[in-house]
Amino acid sequence: MKKIYLAGPEVFLENALNIGKQKQQLCKLYGFIGLYPLDNTFDASAVAPQKLGLKIAQGNEQLIAEADAVIANMTPFRGTSCDVGTAYEMGLARGFSKPVFAYSNDKRLFIQRNIEELPETKKISDELFVDQQNMALENFGLIDNLMLDGAVEDNIILHELVEKDQVYSELLGFEQCLKQLCSYYEMPIKRSQWEMI
Amino acid sequence: MKKIYLAGPEVFLENALNIGKQKQQLCKLYGFIGLYPLDNTFDASAVAPQKLGLKIAQGNEQLIAEADAVIANMTPFRGTSCDVGTAYEMGLARGFSKPVFAYSNDKRLFIQRNIEELPETKKISDELFVDQQNMALENFGLIDNLMLDGAVEDNIILHELVEKDQVYSELLGFEQCLKQLCSYYEMPIKRSQWEMI
Repeated sequence: MKKIYLAGPEVFLENALNIGKQKQQLCKLYGFIGLYPLDNTFDASAVAPQKLGLKIAQGNEQLIAEADAVIANMTPFRGTSCDVGTAYEMGLARGFSKPVFAYSNDKRLFIQRNIEELPETKKISDELFVDQQNMALENFGLIDNLMLDGAVEDNIILHELVEKDQVYSELLGFEQCLKQLCSYYEMPIKRSQWEMI
Repeated sequence: MKKIYLAGPEVFLENALNIGKQKQQLCKLYGFIGLYPLDNTFDASAVAPQKLGLKIAQGNEQLIAEADAVIANMTPFRGTSCDVGTAYEMGLARGFSKPVFAYSNDKRLFIQRNIEELPETKKISDELFVDQQNMALENFGLIDNLMLDGAVEDNIILHELVEKDQVYSELLGFEQCLKQLCSYYEMPIKRSQWEMI
Protein backbone atom coordinates (compact mmCIF):
# COMPACT_ATOMS: atom_id res chain seq x y z
CA MET A 1 0.00 0.00 0.00
CA LYS A 2 1.16 3.53 -0.80
CA LYS A 3 2.16 5.66 2.17
CA ILE A 4 0.92 9.23 2.48
CA TYR A 5 2.57 11.78 4.78
CA LEU A 6 -0.07 13.97 6.44
CA ALA A 7 1.26 17.53 6.68
CA GLY A 8 -0.65 20.35 8.37
CA PRO A 9 -1.00 22.64 11.38
CA GLU A 10 -3.57 20.36 13.05
CA VAL A 11 -0.64 18.88 14.99
CA PHE A 12 -0.93 21.99 17.20
CA LEU A 13 -4.59 21.33 18.08
CA GLU A 14 -5.56 20.13 21.53
CA ASN A 15 -7.05 16.99 19.93
CA ALA A 16 -4.18 16.57 17.47
CA LEU A 17 -3.85 12.82 18.10
CA ASN A 18 -7.53 12.31 17.43
CA ILE A 19 -7.44 14.24 14.14
CA GLY A 20 -4.43 12.18 13.13
CA LYS A 21 -6.37 8.98 13.81
CA GLN A 22 -9.34 10.24 11.76
CA LYS A 23 -7.02 11.06 8.86
CA GLN A 24 -5.36 7.65 9.08
CA GLN A 25 -8.75 5.91 9.10
CA LEU A 26 -9.78 7.81 5.96
CA CYS A 27 -6.45 6.84 4.35
CA LYS A 28 -7.17 3.19 5.11
CA LEU A 29 -10.68 3.47 3.66
CA TYR A 30 -9.14 4.63 0.36
CA GLY A 31 -6.38 2.02 0.38
CA PHE A 32 -3.47 4.05 1.75
CA ILE A 33 -1.32 4.14 4.88
CA GLY A 34 -1.27 7.56 6.53
CA LEU A 35 1.96 8.68 8.21
CA TYR A 36 1.23 11.34 10.83
CA PRO A 37 3.96 13.50 12.42
CA LEU A 38 2.78 12.53 15.92
CA ASP A 39 3.31 8.82 15.12
CA ASN A 40 6.90 9.42 16.17
CA THR A 41 7.23 9.51 19.92
CA PHE A 42 10.21 10.76 21.86
CA ASP A 43 11.09 10.78 25.52
CA ALA A 44 10.75 14.49 26.23
CA SER A 45 12.45 14.23 29.60
CA ALA A 46 15.61 12.65 28.22
CA VAL A 47 16.98 15.58 26.23
CA ALA A 48 17.17 19.37 26.21
CA PRO A 49 14.20 21.06 24.48
CA GLN A 50 16.28 22.22 21.49
CA LYS A 51 17.55 18.69 20.90
CA LEU A 52 14.03 17.30 21.22
CA GLY A 53 12.73 19.85 18.68
CA LEU A 54 15.46 18.90 16.22
CA LYS A 55 14.82 15.19 16.79
CA ILE A 56 11.14 15.71 15.97
CA ALA A 57 12.16 17.54 12.78
CA GLN A 58 14.46 14.67 11.84
CA GLY A 59 11.68 12.16 12.56
CA ASN A 60 9.27 14.04 10.28
CA GLU A 61 11.88 14.20 7.51
CA GLN A 62 12.30 10.44 7.87
CA LEU A 63 8.53 9.90 7.52
CA ILE A 64 8.50 12.05 4.35
CA ALA A 65 11.44 10.05 2.99
CA GLU A 66 9.43 6.84 3.62
CA ALA A 67 6.20 8.24 2.13
CA ASP A 68 5.14 7.92 -1.51
CA ALA A 69 3.22 11.19 -1.51
CA VAL A 70 2.15 14.08 0.74
CA ILE A 71 -1.28 15.57 1.47
CA ALA A 72 -0.81 19.09 2.83
CA ASN A 73 -3.40 21.05 4.80
CA MET A 74 -2.72 24.51 3.34
CA THR A 75 -5.42 26.25 5.41
CA PRO A 76 -3.92 29.64 6.41
CA PHE A 77 -2.37 29.48 9.87
CA ARG A 78 -1.63 32.47 12.14
CA GLY A 79 -1.64 34.84 9.19
CA THR A 80 -2.65 34.81 5.53
CA SER A 81 -0.42 31.91 4.41
CA CYS A 82 -0.07 28.22 5.03
CA ASP A 83 1.83 27.00 8.13
CA VAL A 84 5.61 27.30 7.49
CA GLY A 85 6.30 23.77 8.71
CA THR A 86 3.83 22.46 6.14
CA ALA A 87 5.40 24.68 3.44
CA TYR A 88 8.82 23.28 4.32
CA GLU A 89 7.52 19.72 4.14
CA MET A 90 5.93 20.36 0.73
CA GLY A 91 9.33 21.58 -0.49
CA LEU A 92 11.15 18.61 0.99
CA ALA A 93 8.71 16.20 -0.70
CA ARG A 94 9.19 17.94 -4.07
CA GLY A 95 12.96 17.79 -3.61
CA PHE A 96 12.53 14.03 -3.09
CA SER A 97 10.41 13.98 -6.33
CA LYS A 98 7.27 12.94 -4.45
CA PRO A 99 3.87 14.27 -5.51
CA VAL A 100 2.12 16.75 -3.22
CA PHE A 101 -1.67 17.09 -2.98
CA ALA A 102 -3.29 19.85 -0.95
CA TYR A 103 -6.49 21.30 0.45
CA SER A 104 -7.46 24.50 2.21
CA ASN A 105 -10.49 25.38 4.31
CA ASP A 106 -10.31 28.96 3.05
CA LYS A 107 -11.64 29.47 -0.44
CA ARG A 108 -10.27 32.96 -1.07
CA LEU A 109 -7.41 33.80 -3.42
CA PHE A 110 -4.14 34.85 -1.77
CA ILE A 111 -4.50 38.46 -2.95
CA GLN A 112 -8.03 38.72 -1.56
CA ARG A 113 -7.01 37.26 1.80
CA ASN A 114 -4.05 39.64 2.02
CA ILE A 115 -6.14 42.69 1.15
CA GLU A 116 -8.82 41.70 3.66
CA GLU A 117 -6.56 40.70 6.53
CA LEU A 118 -3.29 42.63 6.41
CA PRO A 119 -3.41 46.08 8.01
CA GLU A 120 -3.25 49.17 5.80
CA THR A 121 -2.80 47.61 2.37
CA LYS A 122 -2.83 50.06 -0.56
CA LYS A 123 -3.78 49.77 -4.20
CA ILE A 124 -1.05 51.31 -6.34
CA SER A 125 -2.41 50.24 -9.75
CA ASP A 126 -4.88 47.68 -11.11
CA GLU A 127 -2.25 44.96 -10.66
CA LEU A 128 -0.11 46.24 -7.78
CA PHE A 129 -1.19 46.18 -4.15
CA VAL A 130 1.26 46.73 -1.28
CA ASP A 131 1.28 46.21 2.48
CA GLN A 132 2.09 48.64 5.31
CA GLN A 133 5.79 48.43 4.48
CA ASN A 134 5.26 49.00 0.74
CA MET A 135 6.01 45.33 0.06
CA ALA A 136 4.12 43.89 -2.90
CA LEU A 137 1.23 41.47 -2.40
CA GLU A 138 1.49 38.54 -4.82
CA ASN A 139 -1.27 38.95 -7.39
CA PHE A 140 -1.27 35.95 -9.72
CA GLY A 141 -4.76 34.61 -9.06
CA LEU A 142 -3.23 31.82 -6.96
CA ILE A 143 -4.19 30.35 -3.58
CA ASP A 144 -0.99 31.09 -1.65
CA ASN A 145 2.66 32.01 -2.32
CA LEU A 146 3.44 30.91 -5.89
CA MET A 147 6.04 28.36 -4.77
CA LEU A 148 3.31 26.47 -2.90
CA ASP A 149 0.76 26.54 -5.71
CA GLY A 150 3.55 25.45 -8.05
CA ALA A 151 4.31 22.42 -5.89
CA VAL A 152 0.84 20.89 -5.94
CA GLU A 153 0.22 18.04 -8.37
CA ASP A 154 -3.53 18.47 -8.92
CA ASN A 155 -5.97 21.32 -8.12
CA ILE A 156 -5.75 22.57 -4.56
CA ILE A 157 -9.08 21.47 -3.03
CA LEU A 158 -10.87 24.50 -1.59
CA HIS A 159 -13.79 24.67 0.81
CA GLU A 160 -15.82 27.61 1.99
CA LEU A 161 -14.53 29.02 5.23
CA VAL A 162 -16.00 26.58 7.74
CA GLU A 163 -16.91 27.22 11.38
CA LYS A 164 -13.93 28.93 12.95
CA ASP A 165 -13.45 26.19 15.55
CA GLN A 166 -13.37 23.52 12.83
CA VAL A 167 -11.11 25.26 10.37
CA TYR A 168 -8.17 22.94 11.10
CA SER A 169 -10.12 19.76 11.81
CA GLU A 170 -12.62 19.75 8.90
CA LEU A 171 -11.67 16.82 6.64
CA LEU A 172 -13.90 17.13 3.54
CA GLY A 173 -11.01 18.62 1.55
CA PHE A 174 -8.65 15.98 2.88
CA GLU A 175 -10.96 13.22 1.64
CA GLN A 176 -11.11 14.84 -1.81
CA CYS A 177 -7.30 14.78 -1.89
CA LEU A 178 -7.48 11.03 -1.21
CA LYS A 179 -9.71 10.73 -4.29
CA GLN A 180 -7.13 12.69 -6.30
CA LEU A 181 -4.49 10.25 -5.10
CA CYS A 182 -6.63 7.29 -6.16
CA SER A 183 -6.82 8.79 -9.69
CA TYR A 184 -3.10 9.55 -9.63
CA TYR A 185 -2.27 5.93 -8.80
CA GLU A 186 -5.09 4.60 -11.03
CA MET A 187 -6.79 2.95 -8.08
CA PRO A 188 -10.56 2.47 -7.80
CA ILE A 189 -12.12 5.49 -6.10
CA LYS A 190 -14.23 4.70 -3.06
CA ARG A 191 -17.47 6.55 -2.49
CA SER A 192 -17.17 9.10 0.28
CA GLN A 193 -18.40 8.30 3.76
CA TRP A 194 -21.06 10.98 3.46
CA GLU A 195 -22.17 9.68 0.07
CA MET A 196 -22.83 6.32 1.69
CA ILE A 197 -25.07 7.73 4.40
CA MET B 1 32.69 28.95 -8.28
CA LYS B 2 29.94 27.65 -5.99
CA LYS B 3 26.46 28.97 -6.67
CA ILE B 4 24.25 30.17 -3.81
CA TYR B 5 20.49 30.57 -4.15
CA LEU B 6 19.32 33.69 -2.30
CA ALA B 7 15.95 32.96 -0.66
CA GLY B 8 13.98 35.58 1.23
CA PRO B 9 10.99 37.92 1.31
CA GLU B 10 13.07 40.90 0.11
CA VAL B 11 11.82 40.02 -3.41
CA PHE B 12 8.59 41.80 -2.36
CA LEU B 13 10.39 45.08 -1.52
CA GLU B 14 10.04 48.11 -3.77
CA ASN B 15 13.82 48.04 -4.29
CA ALA B 16 13.98 44.23 -4.61
CA LEU B 17 16.28 44.34 -7.67
CA ASN B 18 18.71 46.60 -5.86
CA ILE B 19 18.86 44.33 -2.77
CA GLY B 20 19.46 41.39 -5.09
CA LYS B 21 22.40 43.20 -6.68
CA GLN B 22 23.86 44.02 -3.26
CA LYS B 23 23.56 40.37 -2.21
CA GLN B 24 25.18 39.22 -5.46
CA GLN B 25 28.07 41.69 -5.00
CA LEU B 26 28.66 40.35 -1.49
CA CYS B 27 28.60 36.80 -2.87
CA LYS B 28 31.24 37.76 -5.43
CA LEU B 29 33.40 39.36 -2.74
CA TYR B 30 33.44 36.03 -0.87
CA GLY B 31 34.05 33.95 -4.01
CA PHE B 32 30.49 32.79 -4.79
CA ILE B 33 27.90 33.34 -7.49
CA GLY B 34 24.55 34.50 -6.11
CA LEU B 35 21.40 33.27 -7.85
CA TYR B 36 18.51 35.66 -7.14
CA PRO B 37 14.85 34.78 -7.88
CA LEU B 38 14.42 38.00 -9.89
CA ASP B 39 17.29 36.98 -12.23
CA ASN B 40 14.63 35.07 -14.15
CA THR B 41 12.59 37.39 -16.32
CA PHE B 42 9.31 36.54 -17.96
CA ASP B 43 7.10 38.39 -20.40
CA ALA B 44 4.18 39.18 -18.12
CA SER B 45 1.92 40.22 -20.99
CA ALA B 46 2.28 36.92 -22.84
CA VAL B 47 0.47 34.64 -20.40
CA ALA B 48 -2.42 34.57 -17.93
CA PRO B 49 -1.41 35.62 -14.38
CA GLN B 50 -1.79 32.09 -12.97
CA LYS B 51 0.51 30.67 -15.65
CA LEU B 52 3.01 33.45 -15.06
CA GLY B 53 3.00 32.73 -11.30
CA LEU B 54 3.61 29.04 -11.90
CA LYS B 55 6.36 29.81 -14.43
CA ILE B 56 8.11 31.97 -11.83
CA ALA B 57 7.83 29.08 -9.33
CA GLN B 58 9.32 26.70 -11.88
CA GLY B 59 12.13 29.18 -12.62
CA ASN B 60 12.99 29.44 -8.92
CA GLU B 61 12.99 25.65 -8.55
CA GLN B 62 15.38 25.50 -11.51
CA LEU B 63 17.72 28.01 -9.84
CA ILE B 64 17.70 25.95 -6.62
CA ALA B 65 18.46 22.81 -8.66
CA GLU B 66 21.46 24.64 -10.19
CA ALA B 67 22.68 26.03 -6.86
CA ASP B 68 25.18 24.34 -4.56
CA ALA B 69 23.67 25.83 -1.40
CA VAL B 70 20.97 28.21 -0.17
CA ILE B 71 21.14 31.24 2.11
CA ALA B 72 17.67 31.91 3.52
CA ASN B 73 16.49 35.18 5.02
CA MET B 74 14.33 33.78 7.85
CA THR B 75 13.32 37.20 9.20
CA PRO B 76 9.64 36.85 10.22
CA PHE B 77 7.34 38.06 7.45
CA ARG B 78 3.69 39.12 7.89
CA GLY B 79 3.40 37.16 11.12
CA THR B 80 5.69 35.45 13.58
CA SER B 81 7.30 32.98 11.16
CA CYS B 82 9.55 33.06 8.15
CA ASP B 83 8.04 33.74 4.68
CA VAL B 84 6.34 30.54 3.41
CA GLY B 85 8.01 30.80 -0.02
CA THR B 86 11.38 30.83 1.74
CA ALA B 87 10.33 27.89 3.96
CA TYR B 88 9.31 25.93 0.85
CA GLU B 89 12.64 26.69 -0.83
CA MET B 90 14.56 25.56 2.25
CA GLY B 91 12.67 22.26 2.09
CA LEU B 92 13.28 21.85 -1.62
CA ALA B 93 17.00 22.45 -1.13
CA ARG B 94 17.15 19.85 1.66
CA GLY B 95 15.26 17.40 -0.54
CA PHE B 96 17.97 17.98 -3.15
CA SER B 97 20.59 17.33 -0.37
CA LYS B 98 21.92 20.89 -0.58
CA PRO B 99 23.06 22.70 2.56
CA VAL B 100 20.95 25.60 3.84
CA PHE B 101 22.37 28.55 5.79
CA ALA B 102 20.11 31.17 7.32
CA TYR B 103 19.89 34.51 9.09
CA SER B 104 17.12 36.50 10.76
CA ASN B 105 16.89 40.15 11.69
CA ASP B 106 14.79 39.26 14.72
CA LYS B 107 16.75 37.88 17.64
CA ARG B 108 13.84 36.53 19.68
CA LEU B 109 13.02 32.86 20.15
CA PHE B 110 9.90 31.59 18.36
CA ILE B 111 8.00 31.15 21.64
CA GLN B 112 8.80 34.70 22.76
CA ARG B 113 7.73 36.19 19.41
CA ASN B 114 4.50 34.21 19.47
CA ILE B 115 3.67 35.23 23.05
CA GLU B 116 4.45 38.88 22.29
CA GLU B 117 2.71 39.13 18.94
CA LEU B 118 -0.20 36.69 18.72
CA PRO B 119 -3.46 37.94 20.24
CA GLU B 120 -4.72 36.39 23.48
CA THR B 121 -2.11 33.71 24.08
CA LYS B 122 -2.48 31.78 27.35
CA LYS B 123 -0.05 30.01 29.65
CA ILE B 124 -1.41 26.56 30.52
CA SER B 125 1.66 25.25 32.34
CA ASP B 126 5.38 26.08 32.56
CA GLU B 127 5.91 24.40 29.19
CA LEU B 128 2.58 24.81 27.42
CA PHE B 129 1.36 28.06 25.90
CA VAL B 130 -1.60 28.22 23.51
CA ASP B 131 -3.07 30.76 21.08
CA GLN B 132 -6.60 32.14 20.79
CA GLN B 133 -7.80 28.84 19.29
CA ASN B 134 -6.14 26.71 21.97
CA MET B 135 -3.47 25.60 19.51
CA ALA B 136 -0.07 24.96 21.07
CA LEU B 137 2.83 27.38 20.58
CA GLU B 138 6.02 25.48 19.80
CA ASN B 139 8.28 25.76 22.82
CA PHE B 140 11.62 24.12 22.10
CA GLY B 141 13.94 27.11 22.50
CA LEU B 142 14.24 27.33 18.72
CA ILE B 143 14.11 30.30 16.34
CA ASP B 144 11.12 29.27 14.21
CA ASN B 145 9.07 26.16 13.42
CA LEU B 146 11.23 23.14 14.27
CA MET B 147 11.31 21.93 10.65
CA LEU B 148 13.09 25.17 9.67
CA ASP B 149 15.61 25.12 12.52
CA GLY B 150 16.24 21.46 11.69
CA ALA B 151 17.06 22.32 8.09
CA VAL B 152 19.83 24.80 8.78
CA GLU B 153 23.41 23.53 8.48
CA ASP B 154 25.13 25.92 10.90
CA ASN B 155 23.82 28.32 13.57
CA ILE B 156 21.04 30.60 12.37
CA ILE B 157 22.67 34.05 12.38
CA LEU B 158 20.60 36.43 14.51
CA HIS B 159 20.68 40.20 14.73
CA GLU B 160 18.88 42.55 17.05
CA LEU B 161 15.64 43.80 15.59
CA VAL B 162 16.95 46.57 13.29
CA GLU B 163 15.15 49.73 12.14
CA LYS B 164 11.71 48.67 10.99
CA ASP B 165 12.22 49.99 7.47
CA GLN B 166 15.47 48.02 7.14
CA VAL B 167 14.33 44.73 8.57
CA TYR B 168 14.28 43.01 5.15
CA SER B 169 17.20 44.86 3.56
CA GLU B 170 19.79 44.71 6.37
CA LEU B 171 22.61 42.42 5.17
CA LEU B 172 24.94 41.96 8.17
CA GLY B 173 23.46 38.53 8.88
CA PHE B 174 23.63 37.62 5.21
CA GLU B 175 27.34 38.44 5.15
CA GLN B 176 27.91 36.24 8.21
CA CYS B 177 26.20 33.38 6.36
CA LEU B 178 28.70 33.88 3.53
CA LYS B 179 31.48 33.42 6.10
CA GLN B 180 29.81 30.22 7.29
CA LEU B 181 29.77 29.03 3.68
CA CYS B 182 33.48 29.81 3.30
CA SER B 183 34.19 27.61 6.34
CA TYR B 184 31.84 24.92 5.03
CA TYR B 185 33.70 24.81 1.70
CA GLU B 186 37.10 25.33 3.41
CA MET B 187 37.69 28.54 1.49
CA PRO B 188 39.68 31.51 2.85
CA ILE B 189 37.35 33.88 4.73
CA LYS B 190 37.44 37.48 3.53
CA ARG B 191 37.32 40.28 6.06
CA SER B 192 33.96 41.97 6.12
CA GLN B 193 33.42 45.23 4.28
CA TRP B 194 32.81 46.99 7.57
CA GLU B 195 35.96 45.50 9.10
CA MET B 196 37.96 47.09 6.28
CA ILE B 197 36.58 50.59 6.84
